[in-house]
Amino acid sequence: MSFHPPQRTLMGPGPSDINPRVSQALARPTIGHLDPAFIGLMDETKTLLQYAFRTKNELTLPLSAPGSAGMEACFVNLIEPKDTVIVCANGVFGLRMKENVERIGATAVMVHDDWGNSISLEKVSDAIKQHPDAKALALVHAETSTGVKSDVAGLCSLAKENGLLTIVDTVTGLGGIEVSVDEWGADAVYSGTQKCLSCVPGISPLTFSPQAQEVISNRKTPVQSWFLDMNLIMGYWGQGTQRSYHHTAPVNAIYALHESLTILKEEGLENSWARHQHNHNALRAGLQSMGLNLVVDEQDRLPQLNAVAIPQGIDEAALRKQLLNDYHLEIGAGLGELAGKVWRIGLMGYSSRPENVRLCLSALEAGLLAQNVKLDTGEAIKAANGVYNQG
Amino acid sequence: MSFHPPQRTLMGPGPSDINPRVSQALARPTIGHLDPAFIGLMDETKTLLQYAFRTKNELTLPLSAPGSAGMEACFVNLIEPKDTVIVCANGVFGLRMKENVERIGATAVMVHDDWGNSISLEKVSDAIKQHPDAKALALVHAETSTGVKSDVAGLCSLAKENGLLTIVDTVTGLGGIEVSVDEWGADAVYSGTQKCLSCVPGISPLTFSPQAQEVISNRKTPVQSWFLDMNLIMGYWGQGTQRSYHHTAPVNAIYALHESLTILKEEGLENSWARHQHNHNALRAGLQSMGLNLVVDEQDRLPQLNAVAIPQGIDEAALRKQLLNDYHLEIGAGLGELAGKVWRIGLMGYSSRPENVRLCLSALEAGLLAQNVKLDTGEAIKAANGVYNQG
Repeated sequence: MSFHPPQRTLMGPGPSDINPRVSQALARPTIGHLDPAFIGLMDETKTLLQYAFRTKNELTLPLSAPGSAGMEACFVNLIEPKDTVIVCANGVFGLRMKENVERIGATAVMVHDDWGNSISLEKVSDAIKQHPDAKALALVHAETSTGVKSDVAGLCSLAKENGLLTIVDTVTGLGGIEVSVDEWGADAVYSGTQKCLSCVPGISPLTFSPQAQEVISNRKTPVQSWFLDMNLIMGYWGQGTQRSYHHTAPVNAIYALHESLTILKEEGLENSWARHQHNHNALRAGLQSMGLNLVVDEQDRLPQLNAVAIPQGIDEAALRKQLLNDYHLEIGAGLGELAGKVWRIGLMGYSSRPENVRLCLSALEAGLLAQNVKLDTGEAIKAANGVYNQG
Repeated sequence: MSFHPPQRTLMGPGPSDINPRVSQALARPTIGHLDPAFIGLMDETKTLLQYAFRTKNELTLPLSAPGSAGMEACFVNLIEPKDTVIVCANGVFGLRMKENVERIGATAVMVHDDWGNSISLEKVSDAIKQHPDAKALALVHAETSTGVKSDVAGLCSLAKENGLLTIVDTVTGLGGIEVSVDEWGADAVYSGTQKCLSCVPGISPLTFSPQAQEVISNRKTPVQSWFLDMNLIMGYWGQGTQRSYHHTAPVNAIYALHESLTILKEEGLENSWARHQHNHNALRAGLQSMGLNLVVDEQDRLPQLNAVAIPQGIDEAALRKQLLNDYHLEIGAGLGELAGKVWRIGLMGYSSRPENVRLCLSALEAGLLAQNVKLDTGEAIKAANGVYNQG
């Protein structure tokens, strides 16, 4: 029997709501992955990705697999067995980077920060001094598990000064907050489609600096993954009209990504960042009026992913279930160390809209009331509207 | 600017034409990858894949990446460094298997057959005798580069008798010709969505036997890919209602796959195979009436992928271009050793229809006439209709 999904409002850590224009693009007729019309689309998609990443990097493309494969692509292409990588971990995705490094047969030197804190430049600086042989610094720009933003510009310049390559995870960052790959001087950056780009999940935008590209071309050992080997993928995604077959591109998913990037460009990157910040401000005001607090310090907060401390005595899973059943609203549970301690409320891409903020606040209010929390009904919406009315 | 693809008829080596029901499913609203409704869909998709693969294997799932990642998943999970694998190569994809084995640090013992021939059981038997330490036999069921079918049942029992695991590529086979994983006793089998399933490209159906699953659980070394590690993926695709997050599933692509498998089940596997054979017979009759010959011996031919010898003096690229421009019809070029020597005409899944056979024959006729080949106009269609009229 055909499957008919419920119509949800997606305000978890991703996927986010899909813009209807993206759904339409997705369903357009499939063409061949070597069709001249598709080659044209590939070139446009690459240019749009360069715009989104703020980069001139020639090696910029959508990987035919989700963000975790994008992470792996950066590591397996830049890192060789016995290399040392300094890995910053302040959440789930930093720890996943460690796994990636170790499965290559390389050494991960860990720099840990508490979950909910940003990456400490001082600790990273110390680690670099203690490991002068390190080849790369790996870090997460926007930690999806905690809602924390780290200072990528500062971390990248620290790395550059010491001759290290940088690998940056901005799966949740791209489109929602500033991502400036060239200004940062980052060498390998990966993202995801299902967060602030509001495209369907399954693709990972990637970009590599010219220096990273050189490192990849001059490896001593082959890339351990055939599927992720950038030397081969470039034959298909490279310049010119002759593209050599590597694998069959996910044609329809590329239609969708192209449309979501087109929408981003129409809005303008800076406008998109401002929109994410504005809706975050409104959500935060509403949450605070209900006595709900964000766990991340203000200067480190991601506007697109809000980690909310769960008040004592609340059955958090029951509340999420109520939101899903009564409001068709998805918010995220905590992950790893923060499981059971926070909700993660996403305001990403097309989900970052006043109507979503209001829906979420009303639903949370109902959820808390159902668990006998004392609240003045309607105060949260009023607080959010206060922010919107300021314009 | 939004991209509007041309409406093609896809009769190359894949992607094939998408059933409109699949496009509709693809565009349905995205829900979360941990939504209870999605968990239900995952279970159904698994059951449908078991039907398509004819297997009871518990570890049967759609990998969130294309067929070449499916190939890699089979190798990196079953094979460890220093293992020996006997790899059969009679086309591009056997050679790709070699790459996969070597990038693990394992040894590939190659058994070569001419492109256009099926895999020789005798040669494989000799290789097994000469390499009693080999751990696995890897082979391609349906070689997309040549249109050749090999005797998987025979090859698997040869392997089993000698204690070898088997890795089978049936990217182009599944849904088009018999695939009987349990009857074969195959241990790791991968396919693609964009061939005879007529779903969008980007996903790779996988199945592992209980013995393969045991080998994976008892590895001495970690799987070199975090993204493809079946020990982790099973936590998400496994049984029960508790699914642990691994990566964000490509939700909409799974809707599409579910729908394409539903269509396959409605038709019935055996009926689908018969349909592929019937349309192949009609195409072949039409081709022969134009003096065009298939390069593969009758007993080894894939009905869904027809490698047609290009007659002397024909500008093959010009003809394909004419088909694309005048008929919006895509047929495939030759690949590897067969580049410039054959066209590959796919009759896969939803593309395997009488109207496609007739369109292709008319278009080829026009293409040959444009290059001054002497032909009686309409004879090809007449020959195809002869097959259809026999019922």
